Formats: sequence, C-alpha cells, structure tokens
Amino acid sequence: MEGLAVAAKPMIKVAAVCGSLRKGSYNRGLIRSAIEMCGGNGPVAGMQIELVDIAPLPFLNTDLEVDGGFPAPVDAFRKKILRANAYLFASPEYNYSLSGPLKNAIDWASRAPNCWADKPAAVVSAGGNFGGGRAQYHLRQVGVFLDLHFINKPELFVHAFQPPPKFDSDGNLIDPDTKERLKQVLLSLQAFTLRLQQ
Amino acid sequence: MEGLAVAAKPMIKVAAVCGSLRKGSYNRGLIRSAIEMCGGNGPVAGMQIELVDIAPLPFLNTDLEVDGGFPAPVDAFRKKILRANAYLFASPEYNYSLSGPLKNAIDWASRAPNCWADKPAAVVSAGGNFGGGRAQYHLRQVGVFLDLHFINKPELFVHAFQPPPKFDSDGNLIDPDTKERLKQVLLSLQAFTLRLQQ
Amino acid sequence: MEGLAVAAKPMIKVAAVCGSLRKGSYNRGLIRSAIEMCGGNGPVAGMQIELVDIAPLPFLNTDLEVDGGFPAPVDAFRKKILRANAYLFASPEYNYSLSGPLKNAIDWASRAPNCWADKPAAVVSAGGNFGGGRAQYHLRQVGVFLDLHFINKPELFVHAFQPPPKFDSDGNLIDPDTKERLKQVLLSLQAFTLRLQQ
Amino acid sequence: MEGLAVAAKPMIKVAAVCGSLRKGSYNRGLIRSAIEMCGGNGPVAGMQIELVDIAPLPFLNTDLEVDGGFPAPVDAFRKKILRANAYLFASPEYNYSLSGPLKNAIDWASRAPNCWADKPAAVVSAGGNFGGGRAQYHLRQVGVFLDLHFINKPELFVHAFQPPPKFDSDGNLIDPDTKERLKQVLLSLQAFTLRLQQ
Repeated sequence: MEGLAVAAKPMIKVAAVCGSLRKGSYNRGLIRSAIEMCGGNGPVAGMQIELVDIAPLPFLNTDLEVDGGFPAPVDAFRKKILRANAYLFASPEYNYSLSGPLKNAIDWASRAPNCWADKPAAVVSAGGNFGGGRAQYHLRQVGVFLDLHFINKPELFVHAFQPPPKFDSDGNLIDPDTKERLKQVLLSLQAFTLRLQQ
Repeated sequence: MEGLAVAAKPMIKVAAVCGSLRKGSYNRGLIRSAIEMCGGNGPVAGMQIELVDIAPLPFLNTDLEVDGGFPAPVDAFRKKILRANAYLFASPEYNYSLSGPLKNAIDWASRAPNCWADKPAAVVSAGGNFGGGRAQYHLRQVGVFLDLHFINKPELFVHAFQPPPKFDSDGNLIDPDTKERLKQVLLSLQAFTLRLQQ
Repeated sequence: MEGLAVAAKPMIKVAAVCGSLRKGSYNRGLIRSAIEMCGGNGPVAGMQIELVDIAPLPFLNTDLEVDGGFPAPVDAFRKKILRANAYLFASPEYNYSLSGPLKNAIDWASRAPNCWADKPAAVVSAGGNFGGGRAQYHLRQVGVFLDLHFINKPELFVHAFQPPPKFDSDGNLIDPDTKERLKQVLLSLQAFTLRLQQ
Repeated sequence: MEGLAVAAKPMIKVAAVCGSLRKGSYNRGLIRSAIEMCGGNGPVAGMQIELVDIAPLPFLNTDLEVDGGFPAPVDAFRKKILRANAYLFASPEYNYSLSGPLKNAIDWASRAPNCWADKPAAVVSAGGNFGGGRAQYHLRQVGVFLDLHFINKPELFVHAFQPPPKFDSDGNLIDPDTKERLKQVLLSLQAFTLRLQQ
C-alpha cells in the first residue's frame, strides 16, 4: 500500500513546567490550554504535553545529594525532564524575574548530568504590565547555560488584566485570540524541534 | 564637654541574606566575614549585620496568605527585613541567574506592603567563571521593582576557584585581599545609607 | 521679612539625551514636553532641562583621542554632561536594546574622567510592544558602570500606538494622562537629586 | 569511483562583524584569527569567514530611508549580511553592554526585510573583567528579535589582560589555548548551521 511509504512525523513529548504554585494560576491555565490543543480533538497533531509538577521539590541544596543520589522527588522530576523532547515553560513574572519555585526546579534538573541539554524550548507568560516579559528574558539567559534552544518567534505575553477577559475565575484560558497565538507558539516549537532532530 | 557636641553616626542595621542553603556555602562565608568586620574589634564602625535565614520559608504561593496573614516563618522573615535600614545580599549564581531560594525569599518580603521599599542595598557573590556576576545583574533588575537603591561601586565578584585560596574548607573567607574588597563594599553601603537617610 | 528665611531649593540642571535621531521622534517629543513642564509656566519648579544633541558625535573610536584630547564635538558633548546635576534619557527600543547612537554618546562621555559619575538619572521611552521597556533595563545595567543612580519609580513606558493618541504628527506629546505620568517622573528625579545632594 | 558517492559538506559563508573600530582592536584580532583558521591551511574546513566593515555606516536614522531605499553604505552592508549563512560577532563590552557602532550596524540590517532572520550565530569577545561577557548577554537578547539562533556552547570570553599574553601589540591573537577555544566555537557554529539547514 502506498500509505506505508508515508513516514509519520514522530510524536514529540513536551514537558511543561509552570512557575506559579497557586491553584488559580493563569500561567498553569496556559499550559492546560496547550495540553488540550495537542489532545485527541485538538488542532495540533504530533505533540503530547505533560504538566510536570514542581511543588514537591525541596529547595535546592547540594548537601541533599548523597552518594551522587538525589532526593526522591528530585529524582522523579529529573526523569520526566530527561525523557522529554522539548519544553514549554509558563513563567509568571515576580519582581521583574522568574519565580523562586521555577528557578529552583530548573536548577535541580540542571545538576550533572544536565537533563535539559540540547533540547528546544518555548516560554509563555501571563501577567500585568509586560505580561510576564521580563521573566522571559531572564529565562532565556538561564537557557544559555542549560543549553536550551528557545524558539524566537512568536513570543507570547498575555496581558491578563486587559480586556477582553483572558481567563475565567478558575484560571482557564477563554480568549480565542490568545488561544490562536498560543497555538502558533506550539506549532513553532514543533517545527523547531523537528528541525533540530534531523 | 565638647564631646557632647559630636553627634554620633546612627547605627545602621543591615539584614544579610544568603542565596545558598548548603552548609559550606562560600556566599554565606562572605556574610560571616562581613559580620565580623562590623563587630566589636572589626574595622567597620556604625553597622550591625544580621544574617537572616531563608531556609524555613515555604515556596511562595499566595494561596498560603489567609485573611491577609502570612505563614509564621514568612511573617518572621518579613519583620526582620522591614526593620533593617539596609541590605546585604550574598547571591550565588545558579545557571546564570539567582538561586531559587533567594528569589523565593525576596518575593515573600515584597508582598504588600513591600518590606524592601526605598532602602539601600549591596550585593556580593562568590563562584566560578564570573564570580557570580550574572546573578548580580538579575538581582539589580529585581531591585528596580522592589525599590532598592543598590550601590554601584565597588562591585565584588569573588573568583572562588582561582589562586590564592579564598575560602577554607568550612567556607570561611581567608584571603586578605578579598577581605579588604569586602570591607570597601561595606563602607560604600554605609556611606550610601547615610546619604539617603539625610 | 519672614520670606527671607525661606531657603530656595537650588535649581537642578538636567541634561536630556534622546536615543533617536529622526525628526519626528516620539522620544524626543517626551523630552520637549519635559522641558516645557519645567519652563516658566510649567508645573515643575526648580529644574531646567536642556536637550543635548548627540547627532554630531563621531562613532566611538579611541584612536580619535589624541594626546588625551577628544574630537571637538565630543568635547562639547562631554562638557554639557559634566556640568549637569542629573540626567533624563529618552531611549527608543531598537531590537530589544538601546539605539546605537545613544550607546555611542553614553560611551564617549564615560571616557576617563567619567562625566556621568555619581549623579541621579531617569529614563523614559515610547514605542510599541513594551513601550521601550527592554531598552530601559539594558540602560540601567549600563548605569551601574557609569555610576548613575536611577530612580526606581515611577517607570514610564509610553505605548505609542495604543489609543488614545499619545503624539501628534510632529511627535509632540498630546495625551494628558501621559503628561501627568511624565511629570511624576520629573518630580521623582528632582526629589532623588535633592536627597542625594544633601 | 567511490569518492563520487561522498557528498561534500556545503561551504558555509560566515559574515563576521566587529564592534570595535580602533585599529588595534583585540576583538577584530579574534576575527582575523578565525578567518585564518578557516583558510587554506587552517584546521577548520567547510567555512569561509568574511569581515564586514561597519565603519562606513551612518548613524541609524529612518529619515535617511527614501522611497524604501537605504543609503549606499547601508545597502552594501545589508547585502553582505543577507547572503551569509551564519554570523560571527566579536563584541567588545563598553559600559556593560554592546558598543554603539555594533548596535548601529545590527539595527540597519534589521530594517525590513530583516537580513539576519532565522540564521545561526556565535559571539566572542575580549576585554578586561568578564572578558566582554555582559555585552554577549545583551547581544543574545537582541538576537531574539532579530531571530538569530545563537550557539550556546562553548562561550568564549577572552580575558585580554591576564597572563599569559593573549594578543600582540597589533591585536593579533597569539595565545594557543585561546586559539583552540576559538576553533571550538567555530566548529560548534558550523555544526549548528548544518543542523539547522537540514
């Protein structure tokens, strides 16, 4: 059959990390929306996104590494980061930079051997003012040492408090225009991942 | 008596925060050395430095704020930040930015009412490569929103792994030249604090 | 007369530098508006702002410094920077950073002896997207080495292309709300200058 | 012949830009050394590097664009940037950021249509202190909007004033270790370029 000759695009496994721990987080809402877009009926085929929880991690303290081993929650987190093909960060901006919990998680997975190395990534954010923009540029600098390859375009800064409403009261993304822009981020991440994998 | 006419310089209370949690941290060693310099026999008069521990803080999560109150360790931390006249940060560089625990602590004390507002600060760091330099510039950007007034000069980046040895095996600062440079940072912070207070 | 006992606040001389060279520059429009506010009938008393032109400067090249002397346009520029008490930068954002002409001018005036040293400064910007925000943070990092003391608040990012119209076709600031926010920047710069001068 | 079956790697054309205009610039020395390495007897095969002069460019001023045309030196510069497959920046650090002439050149080539778009790049620098490091991170942020894909590793910060001597009095790179590290940068740029081209 001719169909046999058509190579399927490989499924890209994306690990998503949210920098906010609060229940109604808009940034986690962006990730939930991204997960839906890549699901069964969603518009983005070829990617699976898994939200990896960072709340169970202890504060980074290398004294906790005993005989080259990591605490159990760190070990579990690192394994999920390691087996992903690409990353999606949803990073709130706290005081013009990354949140502490997000940076803490990033740092644990960077302990040798660095779990992030040589993989593509995208970052989105929601917030007031610049929509989280300042945090995104700090994350990009962090990515240089992690050896992440961030997509450049499109960037997504969701101005959470400007009309029309972007999120419902549970933090779910409801704005069609923002959904479309988030989809374009995912498609760009997918294309860049495939390009780097070849 | 003539001496009565000499107004004493007010004692400046400095809260010091270390971004590393590990026992032998070089950055905490810098703070210990600074504390000694300002103590009884030390060369810096007119400043008292207190190391404020950030390890007991939970991860920042505004869901933990109930009826406008903070969790007990956060409340205790905020009070110490609020009553200080100036700040000394010792910030390791993790993956080209601040450590998670340090950013987490900063963010808790910035929750309204912002405990850092309109006060002078200095940052020092020890590490490889740029001696922590990239973290310092991220912290300075954070300081814009916190409304901190960082001294510009001198900057102190301790190249912890270049000869001569800078720290002993317990993380105590032992290099005379680095001690002298740390003293100059403290004197600059003191002068800037007095200038801003007038 | 009782009035005699009232010490006049000293007149603060502000040198303003615009990073855009084009005729209709919105950023230069911000400076013109600031100059008017500090003029005879304006709401801000105690400050005089002079726009210092950067267009006549050559590209920075230390080979042009002969026997410790600077090219004539550089010398004239440096003198104006040196005798100012404070600075107002209007900095467009080009490709997420400062404009070349602005950085060039800053660098000429920083050649030893550094003309900017130990003086207060404010930065404003107009543009799309973040309203010039990314350029402001790069400028603040530059200010660390220049030894500038930037005010932290209020920050002013003029979203030039969002309604209502902010500028007329000649680049003059016409939006009352933006004018009020610009005035608050000037008052903050004035207060910080006086505080640092005491 | 078997040799016929071996596909030659395509020749990569690299445009190199130096941010310093002075004759004895160490940063231009880095580019000269890179050019030699890619020449006839050099150790790096498959890349050709051309130094593109930025001195003839006027200051960026969009008023100089008439009927969609650029001034002649700008036009010539843009053509060279456009036809390159990759970029090598040698960027001195002036006052903790890029030089004015470098930023100016970058901005001219970014005017629509953006000549830099979607191409790989590397940055090296020589200087005191961090060896130009702060400028490199500002350039990387600029690269996000330019849509450049910077290699992450290895980074090269040449500490120009630390022993052993790195450059001779004409600005030629003479230190074998630095040459080896520069070669590794070129090989990394080559590999990333090929990876992105596939």
